Amino acid sequence: MVSVGATNGISTPMRILDLLRAEKQISRVEIAARSGVTQATVTNVVKTLMDAGVVREGTREQLSRGAPRRMLELVPAAWYAIGVQIDSTTTTVVIADYAGIRVASASLRGPGSLSPAAAIAELVDHVDDLLLSASIPRERILGACLVTYGPQDREAGKLLTPQPTDEWYGFPLATSLSEALGLPVLLENDATAAAIGEQAIGLVPTSTFGLLFMSTGVGGAVVVDGVPYRGRSSNAVEIDHVVVNPGGAVCLCGTRGCVGAEAQPLAVSALAFERPGLAARLDLRGTDDEGLADFERLARAARGGDAEATELLAASADYLGLAVVTMFNLFDIDTLVLTGPAFRTAGPMYRTRIEELVRERAAGRDLSQPQILISADVEQAAPMGGALQVLRTIPPPTPPSG
Amino acid sequence: MVSVGATNGISTPMRILDLLRAEKQISRVEIAARSGVTQATVTNVVKTLMDAGVVREGTREQLSRGAPRRMLELVPAAWYAIGVQIDSTTTTVVIADYAGIRVASASLRGPGSLSPAAAIAELVDHVDDLLLSASIPRERILGACLVTYGPQDREAGKLLTPQPTDEWYGFPLATSLSEALGLPVLLENDATAAAIGEQAIGLVPTSTFGLLFMSTGVGGAVVVDGVPYRGRSSNAVEIDHVVVNPGGAVCLCGTRGCVGAEAQPLAVSALAFERPGLAARLDLRGTDDEGLADFERLARAARGGDAEATELLAASADYLGLAVVTMFNLFDIDTLVLTGPAFRTAGPMYRTRIEELVRERAAGRDLSQPQILISADVEQAAPMGGALQVLRTIPPPTPPSG
Repeated sequence: MVSVGATNGISTPMRILDLLRAEKQISRVEIAARSGVTQATVTNVVKTLMDAGVVREGTREQLSRGAPRRMLELVPAAWYAIGVQIDSTTTTVVIADYAGIRVASASLRGPGSLSPAAAIAELVDHVDDLLLSASIPRERILGACLVTYGPQDREAGKLLTPQPTDEWYGFPLATSLSEALGLPVLLENDATAAAIGEQAIGLVPTSTFGLLFMSTGVGGAVVVDGVPYRGRSSNAVEIDHVVVNPGGAVCLCGTRGCVGAEAQPLAVSALAFERPGLAARLDLRGTDDEGLADFERLARAARGGDAEATELLAASADYLGLAVVTMFNLFDIDTLVLTGPAFRTAGPMYRTRIEELVRERAAGRDLSQPQILISADVEQAAPMGGALQVLRTIPPPTPPSG
Repeated sequence: MVSVGATNGISTPMRILDLLRAEKQISRVEIAARSGVTQATVTNVVKTLMDAGVVREGTREQLSRGAPRRMLELVPAAWYAIGVQIDSTTTTVVIADYAGIRVASASLRGPGSLSPAAAIAELVDHVDDLLLSASIPRERILGACLVTYGPQDREAGKLLTPQPTDEWYGFPLATSLSEALGLPVLLENDATAAAIGEQAIGLVPTSTFGLLFMSTGVGGAVVVDGVPYRGRSSNAVEIDHVVVNPGGAVCLCGTRGCVGAEAQPLAVSALAFERPGLAARLDLRGTDDEGLADFERLARAARGGDAEATELLAASADYLGLAVVTMFNLFDIDTLVLTGPAFRTAGPMYRTRIEELVRERAAGRDLSQPQILISADVEQAAPMGGALQVLRTIPPPTPPSG
């Protein structure tokens, strides 16, 4: 069968809304040229979207030959979307308006080892608080996206991993959150969401790139020509299971020496806590719930010149670098973005060491020089990507006709 | 920018020819339905293709409501394409007719450590011999595809690796072969070509799968929804550089313990030759030129119960299995095809051991059971994929008008 490509299944109105979100202001003529849709269809669809209150004519006009053309733009306050990124230690909630601009955000403690039902109840409280404090009317919310680690059954809205507790495996997360919020809820992989967020932030200089998302754990994503690589079941780029130390620590997956088990912040913090001098000096807490906070303490100490903290982070960065070389070799990419809350302070050090390794070892280094970038928004690229995914996939309700 | 998807850049006539090649016989109505092109356009394009002598009305009629519809088919003898797969020890030449059916093939010694110019002169002789013996008129050849290892600059038709000798790095292979044959010549990665060939053979039960191509070395490919994953520069899935033994042998890429350096047939044969008893017993030759033949001797001995040969192949299969787990985890696939001449005899043993490892370790094993398949044509899937790539990308010349 002949593939009809990446736009298959995306309706013309949603494609036009995407274009308006990316371009901010654009004329009907340019929409037709960019979307490959006839001008008559564009005129009709735009009229429907204006009737639905999501598109309006802007103040600017396009300067060109012939009659000036009124530019179109999205109505930012028409609808809103919620992005929620969670792992055991971190919850970040953002609200984006219909133009895809963040209007509110909150960073909170993660659910720790709460049951999924209790975690969802807590999430709903966080979302309610944020909506209230930002004065966003509840009936204007299109939906929410729960952004978290994998493996996931994305369609069914479930995790396929017993983290943080056995109860989470297969629990209907999306359905439960949807019922509790009274809104449609999508489930999305954290690294993939971060990649969607990074594209919208617009600082990545290429439309084909890889991404590491690091919070307590580490995940990967790859974007090719602007489209996230999803594979068979949207569980692609499980970089945490690349083996970098065959005789090493046993990973949840059953293998020894996966880069996740060796180098993720939770593992680095645990190693640090085993050194009494270091643990006391940096006031490390040594619990899973404090894993990311302890990692941040280590990163600050390393930045301040602490040799022991530096040594631990360097070992983690070097292991990650080996996994990134594999990612570059398998996906044929030359650019990687580091994002996620673990890179808040540790970003520059990881960037330097990973870049050194890929420049030395990636098979494609002769074709183009590998480069590693740090996200402009390590804390919120992932939940922002989730909110954008809601805007891009849930159509705005049409007004009652007549 | 909104992506216009995988069909971007493929003209309507080439898309219709692809459909005819895949379906053997198909009506105009069905072409319109399958290609998303209007019936009027299909009628016009089909007329042009019939005038060019590449499409004809078949004998079968479509039985359906209304008037019976004449089925269309390709004219097999309209044009031919050449696929040539080389590595140092093997040269395989195939000729496919315009319907994509193999009409002639030859397996020959590879160029060894000849200079690229001498290797090309030898290739041209092989191609001439095959054309002559199969009585295929030279003026009916559309073009040729040179299928070999990477990394490559595919656009420029050059290898970016000093194999088998330094002279090969950057040598204009495609241009030189094109001049010598008097035909357009494409360059293609061997594993990617094999994946295209496997799809045409039609035994892979899914349109999303991975592939290992093993000759003297080992390469990888991934197909997603029927389209080969190419990455940034068509050098994707360099699986030979997945590190499986960090303290191990130094690879050409500079890293230690790459799966290529540890487990490819050339490495297995070299290890075997270091064991005097085994080398004498199996009459191993111990030279690079005989690397694949020695590997075949080992595979036959292992099949016959030789414990030492079995041990060496098992170690290689287990290393490859680790790299395949990484491939499954990063690309989110559940199916892998083993192809290439090294799997002639060793295929079943590698299949069993690799399958055992991925079923035990792949992160997505709970979502669907991983399976490893052996190609129905380990010897020729790669050069056949090359010939198909010529048919699919080089338009048939149009007859002079009037």
